[in-house]
Amino acid sequence: MKKKIAVVLAGCGVYDGAEIHEATLTLLAIHQQGADYQCFAPDMEQAHVINHLTGEEMAESRNVLVESARIARGNIRSLSTFKAAEFDAILFPGGFGAAKNLCDFAFRGAACTVNPDVEKAVRAMAKAHKPIGALCISPVVITRILGDVAVTIGNDRDTAQAIKAMGGTHQVRSHGEVTVDSRHKVVTTPCYMLDANIGQIFEGASNVVKTILSLA
Amino acid sequence: MKKKIAVVLAGCGVYDGAEIHEATLTLLAIHQQGADYQCFAPDMEQAHVINHLTGEEMAESRNVLVESARIARGNIRSLSTFKAAEFDAILFPGGFGAAKNLCDFAFRGAACTVNPDVEKAVRAMAKAHKPIGALCISPVVITRILGDVAVTIGNDRDTAQAIKAMGGTHQVRSHGEVTVDSRHKVVTTPCYMLDANIGQIFEGASNVVKTILSLA
Repeated sequence: MKKKIAVVLAGCGVYDGAEIHEATLTLLAIHQQGADYQCFAPDMEQAHVINHLTGEEMAESRNVLVESARIARGNIRSLSTFKAAEFDAILFPGGFGAAKNLCDFAFRGAACTVNPDVEKAVRAMAKAHKPIGALCISPVVITRILGDVAVTIGNDRDTAQAIKAMGGTHQVRSHGEVTVDSRHKVVTTPCYMLDANIGQIFEGASNVVKTILSLA
Repeated sequence: MKKKIAVVLAGCGVYDGAEIHEATLTLLAIHQQGADYQCFAPDMEQAHVINHLTGEEMAESRNVLVESARIARGNIRSLSTFKAAEFDAILFPGGFGAAKNLCDFAFRGAACTVNPDVEKAVRAMAKAHKPIGALCISPVVITRILGDVAVTIGNDRDTAQAIKAMGGTHQVRSHGEVTVDSRHKVVTTPCYMLDANIGQIFEGASNVVKTILSLA
């Protein structure tokens, strides 16, 4: 039977949602490696909406689940319905949405709080000893929930400091490289936290998928 | 020197914009095959906004260039600035945005009109004998502009009929297969016009990129 991975999205677009390349290439990597995926997102308003052409905030509101459905082509479920028993692993692509919607790290740093559905899903998978993957900035969400965990977000010193402040350990990694926390089965890679090209994003996503499937 | 491909987006999301997997995997294919890309989109209001969770129209308006910037991570230019001399090929991913924004085929069928910037770009590339790629439903845009051209949109009979009505020839193709019109250097593949998985989308996009690079 095929292994099944839950992919948690945080909107649609690098500056206020899920990073689109990281999300799409994660789905491709899962498919190419013989597993299935199901997308999820929290049913909540986005922290804000960013005009991706100008970088400025727009005077409108959008829903994280509704916008994430664009990446999932409509095949997506509210994260409140997630059941750990139905999946072999859970994976979080990156993008600012992970640090603005899944938690508020982008606004509050190490003192951030995590969306309750996200926290419940991660805790359930950790309790079941099932692997948890996280790309780009998403490892801060996992660290805020699990505390004493080893992760990478590449080489950004401020973010690495915040990870330590939340009880975690940060490991410097380059393009495509992963950090594996064997005790928690947490697998992370920098992706666009480094100045990367789209080929390097696919390499990072593929390596995380390969590693979590080997642990599942 | 690396070959450079212009990728024309039509928004961000299958039901009212560019299909996100087709667009992202086109960029990955271009990178993997040693070429560079530059994204473009017309600076215009979308025909409408569709809630991708419910499929229903939303009471808001969005700009095609601004939403396309989500896929391009902000690195995108207005299609009005496109110059054929700067590129070796032009490529149109699919999604309903191609048939709703780049032209109005989704509303008017074979009697559709094409956005002036799109028409100007395609005519300039055709005049320069440079290759034109189109995925999914985008071949209808190319057919409306060039008329007597051979394309595929997979096997949908109504769309194939409309292509004939616009002066084109339709060839039935399956997953990943391409139709090449050698005279016009137009290369097309069905992608999500068939009931495809994400691996098949990458195969189709890769084959179109490979073929247009061989013709460039």
